[in-house]
Amino acid sequence: MTLKYVYDFREGDRTMVDLLGGKGANLAEMTKMGLSVPPGFTITTEACNEYLLVGTMPRSLESQVETHLAAIESRSRRYFGDKNDPLLVSVRSGAKYSMPGMMETVLNIGLNDETLIGLAKVTGNERFAWDSYRRLIQMFGKTVLGIESQHFEEKLEKQKERSGVTSDLELSTTDLQAIVSEFKEIIREQNGHEFPQDLNKQLSMSIEAVFNSWNTDRAKLYRRQERISDDLGTAVSVCTMVFGNRGDRSGTGVVFTRDPASGSSGEYGDWLPNAQGEDVVAGIRNTLKLSDLKAQMPNIYIELIETLKTLEEHYRDLCDVEFTIEEEKLWILQTRIGKRTPAAAFRIASQFIDEGLISLDEAVQRVDGKQLMNLMFPRFAEGHDAVKLTRGISAAPGAAVGKVAMTSAKAIEFSSAGDPVILVRRETNPDDLAGMVAAVGILTARGGKTSHAAVVARGMGKTAVCGADELIIGIDYFEIPNGTRVREGEIIGIDGTTGEVFFGDVALTDSNVTKFLDGTLSEAEVKDDELVRAVDRILSHADTIRRLGVRANADTTEDAKRARRMGASGIGLVRTEHMFLGQRRQLIENTILAETEEEKVSSLAALLPLQTEDLYSILLVMDGLPVVIRLIDPPLHEFLPDHKEVAIRVEVARALEVAPVDKDIKLLAALDRMHESNPMLGLRGVRLGIVFPGLFGLQVEAIARATARLIGQGKNPHPEIMVPLVASVKELEAIREESEKIIDSVARETGTLLKIPIGTMIELPRAAVTADRIAMAADFFSFGTNDLTQTTWGFSRDDVEISFFGEYLARGIFGTSPFETIDTFGVGALMRIAIEKGRHSRSGIGLGVCGEHGGDPVSIHFFDEIGLDYVSCSPFRIPVARLEAGRASIKNSMISDSK
Amino acid sequence: MTLKYVYDFREGDRTMVDLLGGKGANLAEMTKMGLSVPPGFTITTEACNEYLLVGTMPRSLESQVETHLAAIESRSRRYFGDKNDPLLVSVRSGAKYSMPGMMETVLNIGLNDETLIGLAKVTGNERFAWDSYRRLIQMFGKTVLGIESQHFEEKLEKQKERSGVTSDLELSTTDLQAIVSEFKEIIREQNGHEFPQDLNKQLSMSIEAVFNSWNTDRAKLYRRQERISDDLGTAVSVCTMVFGNRGDRSGTGVVFTRDPASGSSGEYGDWLPNAQGEDVVAGIRNTLKLSDLKAQMPNIYIELIETLKTLEEHYRDLCDVEFTIEEEKLWILQTRIGKRTPAAAFRIASQFIDEGLISLDEAVQRVDGKQLMNLMFPRFAEGHDAVKLTRGISAAPGAAVGKVAMTSAKAIEFSSAGDPVILVRRETNPDDLAGMVAAVGILTARGGKTSHAAVVARGMGKTAVCGADELIIGIDYFEIPNGTRVREGEIIGIDGTTGEVFFGDVALTDSNVTKFLDGTLSEAEVKDDELVRAVDRILSHADTIRRLGVRANADTTEDAKRARRMGASGIGLVRTEHMFLGQRRQLIENTILAETEEEKVSSLAALLPLQTEDLYSILLVMDGLPVVIRLIDPPLHEFLPDHKEVAIRVEVARALEVAPVDKDIKLLAALDRMHESNPMLGLRGVRLGIVFPGLFGLQVEAIARATARLIGQGKNPHPEIMVPLVASVKELEAIREESEKIIDSVARETGTLLKIPIGTMIELPRAAVTADRIAMAADFFSFGTNDLTQTTWGFSRDDVEISFFGEYLARGIFGTSPFETIDTFGVGALMRIAIEKGRHSRSGIGLGVCGEHGGDPVSIHFFDEIGLDYVSCSPFRIPVARLEAGRASIKNSMISDSK
Repeated sequence: MTLKYVYDFREGDRTMVDLLGGKGANLAEMTKMGLSVPPGFTITTEACNEYLLVGTMPRSLESQVETHLAAIESRSRRYFGDKNDPLLVSVRSGAKYSMPGMMETVLNIGLNDETLIGLAKVTGNERFAWDSYRRLIQMFGKTVLGIESQHFEEKLEKQKERSGVTSDLELSTTDLQAIVSEFKEIIREQNGHEFPQDLNKQLSMSIEAVFNSWNTDRAKLYRRQERISDDLGTAVSVCTMVFGNRGDRSGTGVVFTRDPASGSSGEYGDWLPNAQGEDVVAGIRNTLKLSDLKAQMPNIYIELIETLKTLEEHYRDLCDVEFTIEEEKLWILQTRIGKRTPAAAFRIASQFIDEGLISLDEAVQRVDGKQLMNLMFPRFAEGHDAVKLTRGISAAPGAAVGKVAMTSAKAIEFSSAGDPVILVRRETNPDDLAGMVAAVGILTARGGKTSHAAVVARGMGKTAVCGADELIIGIDYFEIPNGTRVREGEIIGIDGTTGEVFFGDVALTDSNVTKFLDGTLSEAEVKDDELVRAVDRILSHADTIRRLGVRANADTTEDAKRARRMGASGIGLVRTEHMFLGQRRQLIENTILAETEEEKVSSLAALLPLQTEDLYSILLVMDGLPVVIRLIDPPLHEFLPDHKEVAIRVEVARALEVAPVDKDIKLLAALDRMHESNPMLGLRGVRLGIVFPGLFGLQVEAIARATARLIGQGKNPHPEIMVPLVASVKELEAIREESEKIIDSVARETGTLLKIPIGTMIELPRAAVTADRIAMAADFFSFGTNDLTQTTWGFSRDDVEISFFGEYLARGIFGTSPFETIDTFGVGALMRIAIEKGRHSRSGIGLGVCGEHGGDPVSIHFFDEIGLDYVSCSPFRIPVARLEAGRASIKNSMISDSK
Repeated sequence: MTLKYVYDFREGDRTMVDLLGGKGANLAEMTKMGLSVPPGFTITTEACNEYLLVGTMPRSLESQVETHLAAIESRSRRYFGDKNDPLLVSVRSGAKYSMPGMMETVLNIGLNDETLIGLAKVTGNERFAWDSYRRLIQMFGKTVLGIESQHFEEKLEKQKERSGVTSDLELSTTDLQAIVSEFKEIIREQNGHEFPQDLNKQLSMSIEAVFNSWNTDRAKLYRRQERISDDLGTAVSVCTMVFGNRGDRSGTGVVFTRDPASGSSGEYGDWLPNAQGEDVVAGIRNTLKLSDLKAQMPNIYIELIETLKTLEEHYRDLCDVEFTIEEEKLWILQTRIGKRTPAAAFRIASQFIDEGLISLDEAVQRVDGKQLMNLMFPRFAEGHDAVKLTRGISAAPGAAVGKVAMTSAKAIEFSSAGDPVILVRRETNPDDLAGMVAAVGILTARGGKTSHAAVVARGMGKTAVCGADELIIGIDYFEIPNGTRVREGEIIGIDGTTGEVFFGDVALTDSNVTKFLDGTLSEAEVKDDELVRAVDRILSHADTIRRLGVRANADTTEDAKRARRMGASGIGLVRTEHMFLGQRRQLIENTILAETEEEKVSSLAALLPLQTEDLYSILLVMDGLPVVIRLIDPPLHEFLPDHKEVAIRVEVARALEVAPVDKDIKLLAALDRMHESNPMLGLRGVRLGIVFPGLFGLQVEAIARATARLIGQGKNPHPEIMVPLVASVKELEAIREESEKIIDSVARETGTLLKIPIGTMIELPRAAVTADRIAMAADFFSFGTNDLTQTTWGFSRDDVEISFFGEYLARGIFGTSPFETIDTFGVGALMRIAIEKGRHSRSGIGLGVCGEHGGDPVSIHFFDEIGLDYVSCSPFRIPVARLEAGRASIKNSMISDSK
């Protein structure tokens, strides 16, 4: 049996994207809808994959193409190679996922020295025919034969000079004839062969070139970065040419069914009379508004508007449409779901609900957390009068203001002094990583959205503007063309959403969306703001459908209050060590360095009322909601002075023959004794609790006392005690035993009933694989995905982001940093094991996550899928988590329905 | 239905150890064999467990005991409580696994003020009766009522003084009568009750006391350390008393069927006339030889020898037998499989083969790798004339010589100066851990085999002598009773196998076994040494039955040669970084600090011939066998000077206003730049290879060139390239691609066919859980169990052994350090996952282990069970691994047969 490699546009529909690619499937769909699509056919991705695997065209492909070409000949009543009235076709790539700018197109196939004459004659437009021919040769040369486009551009420029014109449109037929011979000459020289007069060869070579474009280095890199599989292949659509460049009654344009930037309703787009599609994209000529089309060709305008309406209702989404008008006949050449800004996404989704096009559930699916986060980023205050310096590509969203640093070292220097920094580089490479980590924003003069700087900045969640190519980069300054020089240490602002760069300390302000979510927007302001209303509507619906709870990571009452305002249903992580900063650090230091048991006890005793007060306040703010309190986790040395500095102080004193300070000598001895080569893998977490039990005991007592006090005041506190870094159930049993004794004794002393669940972090691989045993002693699990990522991969965030993450991101070994988005294959596999084993031992065990992934959209979907009860994230991320939890709920229930 | 809680000795057999305990099962077995065992019965472990669970005796137990007591009354024709001729019984504990000294025994139950008279009359021995009574009161007081034994001992001593005698035996009936009243007085005072005259109460209280002895703190600690489950419980055997203390025609003794120390054939033991068992154990009187028994009671002697022969043939193993002679009648009171020294284990196993008692397979099961290792430890040269200072308990085997350090700090000081150290302490606690790590051996004055020092030393594989209680510990010296003082810094030797302590630099020598295995023992010497012949015979058989291959970890030609002699079938790990020590370190340092690409390249180029030469030599030694070469693994900073030291040097120079050395400033800048907080989790392994490709490239080229040269010389090299620290298949793919290019180019250049497998370490949890993907790019896996243990548990060996391992071992959170014996629940679970997933993708994938666990007996059994192909260990451990692989093969095939 021969595989069917070719589908006429009349044979497919939009569900067939895997086989026909996005473009081919939509052309088929529109043909089926009866829209005015030129006849054509699509060669499948299977043909492409077979070609790429075997290295030659599939055997039956040629005859299938011939058959389908004949079919479109008979429908268009023009024939390929007809010397009087030739059929011309376009050959365009179209993969399942859009890969903008990555792949190839050849227009006007079917022209040679003979059919050119026929085309001129039948259209009565000799100039048009020669213009079409030179375009064919140029595109074919570049795309099929791989000749640098600059060769062609130079000749074109020279001809314009010779003719004394500035625009292509002004070139005369004679000029174009001269260009055609010169272009042919380029092909002869560069390729060693003549431009093919055999039209079948033109067609088959073009198809082959599209297939090959799937595997160019840049396409592969793009796919790696976008996580598109390499084995999808591309389809090829062959379509009857229609000509927007046949004169003033012709034209071409791109139009959206609504404004993709603001989300305002009503069609939005531009067009060019007497032009082919590439002219619109190239931006050589100034495009016209649709109102001009209405004025010039009112019937066409009406037909276009109706078509847009039909498409939007059919696709039930914003559509992005390419059209061509050939002698006052409208042709639709492509449509796809339109890309849009975050604000547009929310507004359009809400409009569609009102128009009855989509349901609330669907609206939730039409937006995402990344977009919401984007709307929540601080932005430059409206109406600020800072001087705009230049503009680049918006590479990573947000707005950032800081001191200009021209080198990584300088960035670190400024940042260490506490100043926010914008790192400015011609382009970045792995040596700049430390500086990128230190900076709040990155500005480069070279490189686009997939440059090292852009990829790494997005991977790290930093604001970035890239490819601001006007910039002249100096050693300790940069300049813009008007001569303005900005020196290192001066302040600039960059807007990663618009790509704009400003001079000076531009004020940052919360967006209306953020103010609304934080409860600081008045009702009148809400009413005035369609975007805010859309966010509210969609987020409220997400809340009603989500399965996952959303809690906050919060260590202070301020954080806790904000978390409640933002919609948290509790606290998933209180890091008690954060309460040991400032003055209290001295008490901890005293405890650690104490030489006698009495000293230790008295230092701890001094901490107890302080810790009790901290926890009392947080539990009060969160009254009625669960608050998970983690016992002290980090290595002790974090509470002590720097080892190297003390050593230097002592040695310098000795060298100067001054007696070193007595305290320094003691301190140094203690630091030497406690020194760890890898503190992350040392004495911390539950290990501290076991080796040095007073510390955990103090904290448990503080929790019990704060709780008893609140209960005494008629409140309803729900503390939960979480033990960090457990690897073995025996560790947890030891702490549980000690803790229960303390809680019981406080309960007896205060005459209160204290029921405080005790659970554990699952943040070590061993905890995950022995979760069945650990669950015997744990009321709940909370995944600490930061530490779990560190130990599963065997690298620590602090060390590796600088040393090799940039290289890994750039080479596509990571799509995103596993510290940003959960690594489902590795860390995720361990989480699944832990959940299965934990539930096996204790079916109702509570399951949450409190690592930073708890606020990451992609990760939240995974957490919903594997059945966690809640995620916990920073207060600012709560709305994002609520939205994504809602989206995940719909997606994962669809998946399980279809099982 | 009532559970059967009591079994007469005639009802059970030796298979019933779970229910009857070791002692009860063997008493039943001997009864069944028709040996002369006094009538008795055993109360089951189920009764014990129910008692411990509920807190009261099982309801039907009392009546079952009554019934069985009646049965033995009728057989012995004496009655419990008979005033004329009373039956007396012993009550003894007996768990499934022997717990020496942990649990309790009460003898002579059935005596009170009345039956005492009858016993005196019927035996015609008043003194004997009163002696038995005082023993009962003393044991009952201590064991059942929990009174400190010292109260009784004081009274006994005082009476001896009053009577002017030195031995218990010399006490008269009147003396004993006085003692009995004083003992009763003690019980009244300490317990508040009279010594019970009710005989049933004596019996039931004794049974309950044995049950309770299961849960004493020291029994629990012992079980935790020996990994004996807490829920087994103990059985209680109640046995008719027979009396070795009825006069000169009576006696008691302990005998082994062969010498358990040397392994010489022929029975071995000692006995005491006119004594009860405890007198033999207590060592108060000097025991007599069996030849004395032969002289005094020839018939009994012959009966005993025949019984021993019967037992050995029946049990087919060395038996340890307790007997009592009562008025020239022999009674066997207990037997068990005898403990033996490592040498005896091998010799006896070999003798048994010769005697047709056991097969070669069984002989392999009768010895173990720990014993073989023990025989291979260096020992003190025979005939050395060093002065013996004292003797303690042999707590951890081996022999060690070093400088005396009386504190942890001193131990570190000596050790840092390069001297071996013996740490001498009264006893150790967690503060001594750093010193224990620094020492080669540990000597303490207090504590037994389960003391902190002993447990931790065994956990760390250090030699230790503990509880040398003659020692007087000073601040910087210790003394022995004869006044000899040994000062800190002087040299001593300790023998962890015998417990002996010597003064001076005792010469250490390899054992004959080691010499034999290393091929340096002459044939004549082998012939002369029964032990060596036994080792050879058993090890050779292990080789024929083992499934696991045994390779060596070897980095030098010396190691490789030794490994081949010791029986390695290849090298499982060449650590190439060890070839970068000494002078070459400078070249690496230059490479790392190079400021230009050219400098880097030239430094690397200088290393190539050196590396090629290294690998050439090792491949030559291992000609025909596989050699797995690991590409450079450790963090780069290991090749650089110490960061803190350089910083101090620079700062001190500045403080002194001397310009710091230029090189130091550069070095400091580089070290600052490259500083990692957790180098174990930083830029190392494959990450280095990717960020800094020249380094791996150099090594791969060296491997290819060395191999090509050997092939050119007609040799048969089998190198395999191993990539360390892979977490993602993409890393391995990148290195594979680069490596294959280099190998191909060397192959073309030299005209050699080079087929070099490329595999990876599985040493990160992520590698284990994504092994299916990694296997796509790996020809083999080798488990790096050191790193895998570190990341699975989230602790690094360097840091935690000192900071909390001692505490964890002492509290039983670890049985042994997971760096000594593989953690099967955690690390093992990940290994199983990796194997299953790896084989799923590539069914024939090679599987080995090259972490230090490869030479650990317990771990080897696990590796066999999960189906690895080979283990790799240090050359010295090869024989141990061969033996254990053989043992594992038998054990695991028995397990799978029985499935």
